[in-house]
Formats: sequence, structure tokens, C-alpha cells
Amino acid sequence: MTLSSRLTEMNLTLPKAPQALAAYVPARRRMGNQILVSGQLPLRQGKLIAQGSVPVNVNIQEAKVCAAQCFLNGLAAAVEIASNPDALSGVLQITGYVQSGPRFAQHPQIINGASDLAVQLFGEAGHHVRLALGASSLPLDAPVEISMIFLLQE
Amino acid sequence: MTLSSRLTEMNLTLPKAPQALAAYVPARRRMGNQILVSGQLPLRQGKLIAQGSVPVNVNIQEAKVCAAQCFLNGLAAAVEIASNPDALSGVLQITGYVQSGPRFAQHPQIINGASDLAVQLFGEAGHHVRLALGASSLPLDAPVEISMIFLLQE
Amino acid sequence: MTLSSRLTEMNLTLPKAPQALAAYVPARRRMGNQILVSGQLPLRQGKLIAQGSVPVNVNIQEAKVCAAQCFLNGLAAAVEIASNPDALSGVLQITGYVQSGPRFAQHPQIINGASDLAVQLFGEAGHHVRLALGASSLPLDAPVEISMIFLLQE
Repeated sequence: MTLSSRLTEMNLTLPKAPQALAAYVPARRRMGNQILVSGQLPLRQGKLIAQGSVPVNVNIQEAKVCAAQCFLNGLAAAVEIASNPDALSGVLQITGYVQSGPRFAQHPQIINGASDLAVQLFGEAGHHVRLALGASSLPLDAPVEISMIFLLQE
Repeated sequence: MTLSSRLTEMNLTLPKAPQALAAYVPARRRMGNQILVSGQLPLRQGKLIAQGSVPVNVNIQEAKVCAAQCFLNGLAAAVEIASNPDALSGVLQITGYVQSGPRFAQHPQIINGASDLAVQLFGEAGHHVRLALGASSLPLDAPVEISMIFLLQE
Repeated sequence: MTLSSRLTEMNLTLPKAPQALAAYVPARRRMGNQILVSGQLPLRQGKLIAQGSVPVNVNIQEAKVCAAQCFLNGLAAAVEIASNPDALSGVLQITGYVQSGPRFAQHPQIINGASDLAVQLFGEAGHHVRLALGASSLPLDAPVEISMIFLLQE
């Protein structure tokens, strides 16, 4: 099943691809069939859907929704490079940061918001390597930030 | 000298390869000869060998042992992909996170627990690029988390 | 315009390439045309140009200068691998960490110190993917740490 039909089936619409905020770009193709995606924040129509530290300001469930939003934004950036959603064939890597203080331990549960979506959209080819960890602070005071590597069909 | 004979000589046994905890995988081959490994925690037989923040709950020496354990777990994950330990030819990159508060500065000393092992096992080919830094929190309240890229013989 | 003439035009001198501090190396070539660079600190002639947490001990503008210094140190490491500055053709990725506490939000502004330099030196080919975020602590109590991937001419 193609990505575009899978998105339709899941009733998901790709957000507008994120804009570069500075001298960097949202995504870039690396040699071979990889698309690197810049760190994505849980922005929807230009606004953060939650703000602050987990779990003090944002709860686990809200943070998990943020992780899914970061993934969708990154997917939109990758599609823009691929020019066609169906040219994307899988997800190689997800690195997810959760704004949180000492002893917080539930990063995996939160970043699953992105990982689950990767597998729902790409099936077997969505099985990626992953790093989930805490960050003392994140840009715009976001609760979650995620970077990704997607694969292009060869 | 092959990796398996070197492990024997150092009296090291590879741990059981880590299991995927969610919709991601412990390791995955990237185009060419690279094996990406997910963030590894200092688990031994399914239990953390230390827990908490450095140096408050876990001291430097204990954290260095944790870094070595993370490396061994990651090596086991890579060997599972390579199917044969002797197909692994080197270490390209180590990224090591230490759960620690403001002004802590001894990350390099801790992550050397992984870096030293890389060179003991792979010799010259174990010389990797490295990033060592603090994380405000880590999954399961682990003191150290490490991701790695290994190389396969071409 | 070549990198060396651009450096001259901008009145910049490449620092001495950083030394390996342990069992790792400052930079390493990856298959194809990529040079991975280890995490760089804002060292100048062996000393940190600022120390501590942002914005408590180091202000935004000082931290931005630190980011530029990290970039120059990483560039020097990459040039040493490339053996010739003009063999470097671009910047693929910048990952920038700012030592900072909860709710700090101005990481992008700080890491622009590195991103702006990438584009000033490499033009269009300097447009990279980027991740900017907070770290609870950094080696040597540095305010900023940056890792990079450069591209070689093919």
C-alpha cells in the first residue's frame, strides 16, 4: 500500500511542510536513498500544541500526541524533498527528546507516539532504530523535539 | 585478530541481544556497510546495573562501567544483524549521554568506558567520532545511554 | 569561490585542528563523501572562551560566539581529514546543544552562530539539516557543544 493511500485510510492529512527558520533547511537528501530531517517541534498551523516540561506542564498523553505531531511535520518535510509521498519507502531512524527534569523515566512511552505512526504508515519498512531521552530545555519551550531519517525508494 | 577471538581473549561474553521495546528495532543496516544501533541502556539480564543521576546517585566509576555495558549491549545488537561477530569490522560513531545536572563536567571520563572498549576490541578500526554530553533524564532513570554506528566488512 | 579564499575574504583563520582527547578521533570519513566530526567545544588555543549555563553564566550573544567557535574547530578537524580545505564542498548536518535549564527557549538563536557561518563559507551548499536543543550539562562545563557532518567534493 502506498503512503498516500495509507494516509487517506488513517484519515490523516499531511501538514504544510515546515519552513526553514534560519540558515538551515527542514530536510535534505543524503547520498543514496536517505532524507535527513531537521529537529521538528509539535507545531500545528504555526503554533505549539503544548508548551513546557513533562510531566509538570504537559502530561504523558499530551506529550505522546506532541511526538506524533513532530513526526507528521517531519514526514511533510521529507515529502517535499521526495516531491511525491509515494517515493518514500520507510523510516530508518527516530531521535526523540522530551523536555523533563531529573529522574523522569517515561521517554519511551512518549516517543512511541512517533514510532507507532511510523509503523502504521510504512509497515515493516517503518521499523527504525531509535534514541529517546530527556533534554533540559527545547526550542520555543516545546515539550518534545524529534529528528528523523526517511528512506526513498531506490 | 577477529572480534570473537578478541572477546575470548578479554574474557568477555556478548550479552543476549536486546529486545525491541516498542515499534522500533535494536539495530538496522544502513546502505553500504553501516549498522545503526538504537540507544542502549546499562541493562544486564534485563535489569539496570545502576540507576539515577551522576554523581548524586551513581558515582563516576560506576557510570563508566555502565557505559561499557551499554556498548556491549549495542555490540550484541549489531552482531545479531551481522549474523556473525567476525563480520563486524569497526566502530564509526559513539554518542553517549550521562544523566546529570548543571555544571557537571566529567562526561568524557564516563563515556571512555565505551570508547576504550571499542578500541580494545577493534584496534585502529575502533577509533570513532564521538559526542559526550549531559541529559536531564534518561529512560528507566538510567544513568547512561549510548547509541552507536558499527561497520561491516565490505 | 573556494573555502580557502572565502576564509581569507572573511578574515578568518582556521584554528589548529582539535586533538583526540581519548580513544576517539576528532573526525572520520564515512563511506562516500561525508566527514563526521566529533562533538566540538568552544575552545580557543586550548581554553574555553566561556563557561557555564546559558543564560545564567553566559549570555545569548556570548553563547552565539561560542557556537561559531565550535563550528570553526569542527571545520579545522574536517580539513585535516580532507587534507585540503578546498576539497570540502558543503555542510550536511549541524547538531547543537546549549547548556541550559528548564523553560529556556532561545537555542535556535544561539546555534545560528554556527549555521550562519556554514552558509557564509559554503553558500548554497552550506544549507544543512539542524537539531538545536538543551543539555543539562556539557563536557568541561562548556555552554555549547556542536557536532557536524561535512561533505567532500566527489
